[in-house]
Amino acid sequence: MDTEELIVIKYQLSIPGPTECDPEVLNELNRPSIPHYGNLWMDYYLETLQKLQKVYQTENSVFIMPSSGSGALDATMASLNGKKGLILNNGTFGERLYEIASHYLKEITVIKKDPGEWFLIEEVEKYLKKNRYDLLAVVHGETSTGMVNHLEELSKLCAKKDVLFVVDAISSLGGVELSVDKLGIDFCVSASQKALGSVPGLSTIAISAKGWERMASESDIPGWYLNLRTWQRYEKEWGDWHPFPITLPVHLFFALHKALDQIFEEGLEQRWTRHKRITEMLCTALEQEGISLFIKNKEFLLPTVTSAVLPGERTSEGLQTYLKEEYGILVAGGVGPLRKKVFRIGHMAYSAQEHLIKRVIAGIKAFMKI
Amino acid sequence: MDTEELIVIKYQLSIPGPTECDPEVLNELNRPSIPHYGNLWMDYYLETLQKLQKVYQTENSVFIMPSSGSGALDATMASLNGKKGLILNNGTFGERLYEIASHYLKEITVIKKDPGEWFLIEEVEKYLKKNRYDLLAVVHGETSTGMVNHLEELSKLCAKKDVLFVVDAISSLGGVELSVDKLGIDFCVSASQKALGSVPGLSTIAISAKGWERMASESDIPGWYLNLRTWQRYEKEWGDWHPFPITLPVHLFFALHKALDQIFEEGLEQRWTRHKRITEMLCTALEQEGISLFIKNKEFLLPTVTSAVLPGERTSEGLQTYLKEEYGILVAGGVGPLRKKVFRIGHMAYSAQEHLIKRVIAGIKAFMKI
Repeated sequence: MDTEELIVIKYQLSIPGPTECDPEVLNELNRPSIPHYGNLWMDYYLETLQKLQKVYQTENSVFIMPSSGSGALDATMASLNGKKGLILNNGTFGERLYEIASHYLKEITVIKKDPGEWFLIEEVEKYLKKNRYDLLAVVHGETSTGMVNHLEELSKLCAKKDVLFVVDAISSLGGVELSVDKLGIDFCVSASQKALGSVPGLSTIAISAKGWERMASESDIPGWYLNLRTWQRYEKEWGDWHPFPITLPVHLFFALHKALDQIFEEGLEQRWTRHKRITEMLCTALEQEGISLFIKNKEFLLPTVTSAVLPGERTSEGLQTYLKEEYGILVAGGVGPLRKKVFRIGHMAYSAQEHLIKRVIAGIKAFMKI
Repeated sequence: MDTEELIVIKYQLSIPGPTECDPEVLNELNRPSIPHYGNLWMDYYLETLQKLQKVYQTENSVFIMPSSGSGALDATMASLNGKKGLILNNGTFGERLYEIASHYLKEITVIKKDPGEWFLIEEVEKYLKKNRYDLLAVVHGETSTGMVNHLEELSKLCAKKDVLFVVDAISSLGGVELSVDKLGIDFCVSASQKALGSVPGLSTIAISAKGWERMASESDIPGWYLNLRTWQRYEKEWGDWHPFPITLPVHLFFALHKALDQIFEEGLEQRWTRHKRITEMLCTALEQEGISLFIKNKEFLLPTVTSAVLPGERTSEGLQTYLKEEYGILVAGGVGPLRKKVFRIGHMAYSAQEHLIKRVIAGIKAFMKI
């Protein structure tokens, strides 16, 4: 029955990803298969990497891997196998970063904050003064709380202490101001289905020269598939026809390629501004309804996902069901410790549009009246 | 220019994967995104797993992971971290199996044969008598040579010696007779884009109870993403709404689901027979043209990929270019040590059809006349 339902009803995805897709992006998926190698593929593939570099605002090497975003985080931590890391954790995806790192790093210190609480730069600095770390890792857009962890001061600290800067930009890249080269990020991970505006299935990663230098050797990295050195070796050895170790999902590349084109049609900065504007519009409306934003300090509002807490007896589940049944709109509940506490609205890429967010607001207003 | 070319020309894919896709499968990709969790997704997801179990002919647990086939091989070897393995290698993908295993296993013995040469069961037995191995790993369909490594005798050996049986069925599952439970395979890996008939991007794996029992613990498996224990844990802990650790590429699932349906519409055994018939048709025609099959002993012909060697001065590259330019048909050259020596024709899933293989044969005949 549910199988039929998903064929018939076109829900509006206002969840924190996968995002609503532009029909043009979706149409790309419908192309016939082509080989993932040889001259039919090579130009197209290299073009896609160049476009991605532009979104990352980097001259660094970039890779696109068939996996979810966590796959590229795994590849990053694997490549730093045996090193000593400082990890900032203020939400489910900070926790995930720790979980993944714990399989690879030799020593890990976690600065743990309650979900939604921000990191004090002096505190981070103290840790870096007291100990010699190889890397500092942080989530840029914390999807579980709708919080942005600001990168600028952390970037300066990493440069000063000569520590590798690892950033999970899965839910921010393409929707939130982020410049890999300016911030000196050594490993910057993202994924196709969030603010980049494509469908799920691809992870992306930008790696600095310093990142490469300090990486473990191919045989010292546990694993083969999520081993960046393996990818680097194939890039060299099979560069003329197949510069990656595996079969690539060509259709997901078609869609991502188009989504990246759309980013430049709009303009990257205009896109950042649009995401901010939509976030403000939504947050203002929520507060007018007496709904509290989960992130109290507006400086830390993530422009791609908003979390909020309903007043009184109203439950997130109630709101989710109401919006789905009455308006055909999907919003999300919380994850991890916030599962029953907050509801979350995604507004990224295609779904960060006024008319779509107005529908969400109208639905919430109606829900608050019942 | 190549980018435009691939939009305009619809090539016939007679390569060893990705395979030509049925238009109905391709159309599934064009559906709007849906969340990869919750009640909209769960029935659909579980149904897909059940269909996959039927193709594997198993009651074992199955998983579908966002990665190429090598990703699931990596996850398999990771889960056997620290164990002692015997690996059979008679081609590029046997070599790949070794490469991946070498990152995880404590000790590895490789029985290496020249590409296309088969394994003598007495020889394998000798190794198993001399040493105590935890696992034996073999490629079922060796894509690089067009050879099938028969599993029945190996299966009996593994049972007799109580050794885990690991099979790479990436280019065979769905096109070549294979029954996981009958053969007592403990880890059976495949991928979406070969004989299953879908697009690339998903790997699949069936794991026996014995496989689970002897697997390393979650923290003893290096890595998180390709860690089967992590997948198992999420299946238990998040079973009611999100029984996997990551975002799933829903569109690739749509396509795979439809491709699996088509397998049962045709009938699994009928499908195996069709692949055999098409292989015989092609091989007979090649030999009539004075082209030698790379696999001399017809018992070992893989029903999804055929490798052959052109007589005289004719090159595989020449044939590839001719078929592409004159007939719009793509066939492949060799890989690894056979790169310039053989050409390879894929005939799997949708591409294993008489009219398509007749086009290939007609093209080759014309090429042999010039």
